[in-house]
Amino acid sequence: MHFMFDMFQPPRGTRDFLPEEMLKRNWVLDRIRDVFEAYAFEPLGTPAFESWELLKVKSGDDIVNQIYYFKDKSDRELGLRFEWTASLARVVSSHRELQMPFKRYAIGPVWRYENPSEAHYREFWQADADIVGVSDPIADAEVLAVAVDCLKKLGFEGFVIKLNDRRILEAFIELVGMPKENALEIIRAVDKLSKIGKDGVMKELSKYVQDKDSALKLLDLVSLKSSAEDILKHASNYLKKKPEGIKGCAALKSILDYSKPFGYYDYIVIDLTLARGLDYYTGPVYEVSAKGYENYGSIVGGGRYDEIIGLFGGEPTPATGIALGIERIISLLEKKGGFEDLKLGVDVLVSPVSESVKPIAIEIAQSLRRSGIPTTLDLLGRGLSKQLDFADKKGVRKVVIVGEKELKNRCVTLRDMTTGDQQEAKIEELPRLLAPLSRR
Amino acid sequence: MHFMFDMFQPPRGTRDFLPEEMLKRNWVLDRIRDVFEAYAFEPLGTPAFESWELLKVKSGDDIVNQIYYFKDKSDRELGLRFEWTASLARVVSSHRELQMPFKRYAIGPVWRYENPSEAHYREFWQADADIVGVSDPIADAEVLAVAVDCLKKLGFEGFVIKLNDRRILEAFIELVGMPKENALEIIRAVDKLSKIGKDGVMKELSKYVQDKDSALKLLDLVSLKSSAEDILKHASNYLKKKPEGIKGCAALKSILDYSKPFGYYDYIVIDLTLARGLDYYTGPVYEVSAKGYENYGSIVGGGRYDEIIGLFGGEPTPATGIALGIERIISLLEKKGGFEDLKLGVDVLVSPVSESVKPIAIEIAQSLRRSGIPTTLDLLGRGLSKQLDFADKKGVRKVVIVGEKELKNRCVTLRDMTTGDQQEAKIEELPRLLAPLSRR
Repeated sequence: MHFMFDMFQPPRGTRDFLPEEMLKRNWVLDRIRDVFEAYAFEPLGTPAFESWELLKVKSGDDIVNQIYYFKDKSDRELGLRFEWTASLARVVSSHRELQMPFKRYAIGPVWRYENPSEAHYREFWQADADIVGVSDPIADAEVLAVAVDCLKKLGFEGFVIKLNDRRILEAFIELVGMPKENALEIIRAVDKLSKIGKDGVMKELSKYVQDKDSALKLLDLVSLKSSAEDILKHASNYLKKKPEGIKGCAALKSILDYSKPFGYYDYIVIDLTLARGLDYYTGPVYEVSAKGYENYGSIVGGGRYDEIIGLFGGEPTPATGIALGIERIISLLEKKGGFEDLKLGVDVLVSPVSESVKPIAIEIAQSLRRSGIPTTLDLLGRGLSKQLDFADKKGVRKVVIVGEKELKNRCVTLRDMTTGDQQEAKIEELPRLLAPLSRR
Repeated sequence: MHFMFDMFQPPRGTRDFLPEEMLKRNWVLDRIRDVFEAYAFEPLGTPAFESWELLKVKSGDDIVNQIYYFKDKSDRELGLRFEWTASLARVVSSHRELQMPFKRYAIGPVWRYENPSEAHYREFWQADADIVGVSDPIADAEVLAVAVDCLKKLGFEGFVIKLNDRRILEAFIELVGMPKENALEIIRAVDKLSKIGKDGVMKELSKYVQDKDSALKLLDLVSLKSSAEDILKHASNYLKKKPEGIKGCAALKSILDYSKPFGYYDYIVIDLTLARGLDYYTGPVYEVSAKGYENYGSIVGGGRYDEIIGLFGGEPTPATGIALGIERIISLLEKKGGFEDLKLGVDVLVSPVSESVKPIAIEIAQSLRRSGIPTTLDLLGRGLSKQLDFADKKGVRKVVIVGEKELKNRCVTLRDMTTGDQQEAKIEELPRLLAPLSRR
């Protein structure tokens, strides 16, 4: 048989995770789940693919072009999910029996046809927490709180939480006399200010306005830098005649106030350029980066989307949520040494020294496993020194050497792989002697 | 905007899992992962889709026809994984640095274009544990042991473990003079004996042999019913001149012997009709069903596939493994009441009675959450009686009522939702008073 070389690689833009990487990933995902559940978010499961029509709603062309699209055998148009929000909105609009507020989390892979690079993969994981049914900004404040606590639980210490409200941006656009029908494109251009600079944004804006002055004025307005309270005061003054803009300022002020008892006030920065890419946001939007690692970009993003559920099901339902970017979180944890204390490898190797003691070695392994102690057993009938080599390479901590002589007294030899010390131990004592190694 | 009704349903053959279902699923998956890790299986992560060419190798036409096939934007042919084995084989053949034996687990969704029915979904979960690099049947015995222990951990008590070896079937086919080149089709027909009966199988076999007598003789041979040891003795006698068949009998005898110290000997039944659907099996094959629920079919299946990795990468590498069928396990657990003791719902609701105490209510919620106590907070500014209604509906166990008067002494009212009892409690005492409710 002849195979193409490509076949042995994961498909372009995707990766394999060998056990060491996976143990780190699982450690991260487990901690995030614990925090989500401590905040009483509930898990919701939805399929990996959704109808193409659903995925397209209010997502924006940039992202729609990145969806993995396919047809099933009945020619139904489907796409792999590129994020979790559309699926949540679908479930809420079709399950009117759900108690409000509905706080749900979802953790899993999403797929986008990105240009693969070190920072962009075509399969990547997002961990989302959303609150449906609450229009008060306390819900925005709570999803930010859960995001910050997840990051703290993972060992991050300082944060920059950027806040803005889409309505402020939209009101500014009206105020300076730019065309309202291009608001989305203008907002997206302004969002790039920190990445492509003033000249870059001006160039993009020139597609939508001939009038250079109003574009400059807009950039002036959104570039306001001061304390959070001051920026909101100034913005409110400018927007006196724009009630939607005033609502945006009030929502941010409210989040600021709630952030004090929630415990993350010190991290907040109002950034009036922030917009987030997705078309469905209607109010506050947020981004969190780790202090000292701001240049690596945000590791949490989110915002309020009060229209999308109503659009699906008739009854308008407010909603807000955050998504944690797992790949970027893991890559920052690697950089800051966040996995150094993580226990990898196996606790115990059970080593029979001869064929005749194998059944008892198996029984010993089974009793340790049933006590929850990660235990491996020599399966290759290797000699003891090869078994100890293997133990060394696999990072095994203790080896239970099962020899014929010791077995006569129901004993084995217990070898500590770190120190090389050996001691005799009663078989019955093993689960107790090895228990402190248990992972959880 | 106008939407099709279909859009609000999950795509055909897939399902949504609302929180109550998801909590059960997560409970099952967590327990399986714990047992896999106790046996020192290590997690391996591979993409949801693989190259179409890879997925087709040695899978059998029935399954290839069920693969969700698509092309990416560069016209690469891809398919959603329909099980985990091809991905494992790809990783092993391209990572020659892996220490052998390599014991890996994988838990996640797989996709097959099945005819949707109550028992068949197009997205379903499999939990796999495989051992690569061990040709001795001790590896088969160990993957069966981990499967049985997973099921025990989930509350199942008795089992029927059906064992066979592909080489015995192949030797029988030669023995009765049926065409070797149709061995796979014949094996698959025989595998259906318990489902479609003798006449059904005879009809299928007539496609491959004109000679009715040899087909009848084959069915006689595979229908042998007796103790495991007796069946193997008889089969060995028949197969004296078929060395591969003898090897098959010896492998099963070896698994039988190992099953004693591993602790599941009593459950084993030799069933010479068993073949399992996939083309890549080369030796022992197994199926486990729960005692009392045999009619619902097997909940674990697996076998040895010593050729597929060598086929990819040159160097032959033995391998064997099991897959647990999560949907069927969950459906049996539902039937036997296995989820009745499972704690669903939220531990604590923090209820501010007025706007002015909200900041302190938030602080209390945050301190409980940071102690790992699943806590929700009223986000809708509802009156107390509506909050208690909500607590009741959500299965909340304790409500922390934050009132202005009690706050003067740094106290709150603690209400037990089961008994209706209320007591005053110091705020500082709450994490301790509520701690026993913590989920993990």
